[in-house]
Amino acid sequence: MSPRLYAVGVGPGDPELLTLKAARILRAADVIVAPTGQAEAASYALGIVAGHLDRDRQLVLERVFPMSRDEEELRPHWEATALEVAGHVRAGRTVAFVTIGDPLLYSTFLYLLRILRERYPEIAVEIVPGITSVGAAAAAAGIPLGMAAERLAILPATYEEEKLRQTLLDFDCVVLMKISRVFDRVYALLTELGLERQGVFVRRVGSDQEEVVTDLAALVGQKLDYLSLLIVRKNR
Amino acid sequence: MSPRLYAVGVGPGDPELLTLKAARILRAADVIVAPTGQAEAASYALGIVAGHLDRDRQLVLERVFPMSRDEEELRPHWEATALEVAGHVRAGRTVAFVTIGDPLLYSTFLYLLRILRERYPEIAVEIVPGITSVGAAAAAAGIPLGMAAERLAILPATYEEEKLRQTLLDFDCVVLMKISRVFDRVYALLTELGLERQGVFVRRVGSDQEEVVTDLAALVGQKLDYLSLLIVRKNR
Repeated sequence: MSPRLYAVGVGPGDPELLTLKAARILRAADVIVAPTGQAEAASYALGIVAGHLDRDRQLVLERVFPMSRDEEELRPHWEATALEVAGHVRAGRTVAFVTIGDPLLYSTFLYLLRILRERYPEIAVEIVPGITSVGAAAAAAGIPLGMAAERLAILPATYEEEKLRQTLLDFDCVVLMKISRVFDRVYALLTELGLERQGVFVRRVGSDQEEVVTDLAALVGQKLDYLSLLIVRKNR
Repeated sequence: MSPRLYAVGVGPGDPELLTLKAARILRAADVIVAPTGQAEAASYALGIVAGHLDRDRQLVLERVFPMSRDEEELRPHWEATALEVAGHVRAGRTVAFVTIGDPLLYSTFLYLLRILRERYPEIAVEIVPGITSVGAAAAAAGIPLGMAAERLAILPATYEEEKLRQTLLDFDCVVLMKISRVFDRVYALLTELGLERQGVFVRRVGSDQEEVVTDLAALVGQKLDYLSLLIVRKNR
């Protein structure tokens, strides 16, 4: 493999949902970079791929990024990682940056990609797609995301009532990512629209703690897992 | 593995984009069922997984489904396949139905699933998610599908100008599946909205004939490949 950065989607949690390509690249890479959210916590993505790594031969770097949505706070962390990645690639190494799900769908890798393109456009980047939490959650719940002429919307957790209402009216299937913080308000809106029985809540898909909940009323007022999403499909 | 139907997403075309789980199930299954669009054509999905199969031990069934969107025409074909699948599972066999991309996103498997649930609810069905053409096309083109608070819409090729216009206005990223038949009209609409340079056309992603086209104007009036999609991302 020629020197470059591989952004490797490792799927939502189940190590078997890694692709053959991801497994090959992870075994062959010189350097593995894994993001982690807190100084103390082990990288979730690194745990998923642990079985493919050889720490005697490979350099495995865990890099801490605060659990923040403030780009000003995050930027220095991403810049430091971009500099480090660029250094390894320039020295002739292949670097694999592991990311949960898919690198191009609500992944923290996208911040790194932006900085690399701005500052180090000569560094080759190859993206290895991964199974998304959306696809894995739909599989766990047995719910079609789209068939025939149906329309699918995927939205993050930021809650803007009017926009969300319109999307729920206009689309056949709506997936709400990271639903935990806004669940109660979304449930109230679903009830108003008569859709409260069309939703399925999926928590930590692909992990040991995976849970599929169809009785959404039971979740109201609960503290919900951060790694959760909601699929609302009208035609069930 | 206990007797059941596995719906196995085999990814968009590159055999390396199969998951480890899909590969394991395909190697272990007693019966492989592969859809094909015409009596003469070999199944595309079967070609992707050929390296994992053992035709001496496994029963490999190619089943023809007309390239039609007429459910009345398709239904007898799906019913015959459902009956056949149910028979194998009842006889204690594991059956793997292979499907391009992901089984739950615009897959022909969804018709089979509906009939199985109606007629043979006792047949256990397990869905193995696959890399979608959307994810693989975004990776090939290096385009984020969604980051931070962005909203993503995925739509089939049915062209309703007003709905499409509104979706292009409301969403940060819009993926139009199977764009070939309506490309010229979509291009005209993109031009009207000033978005004609924000789109990327991807043909046969993951195959030898993969092509990523950013100069959309060059595609107007051309006969385009059936297995093509268009990603429109406003913030490029």
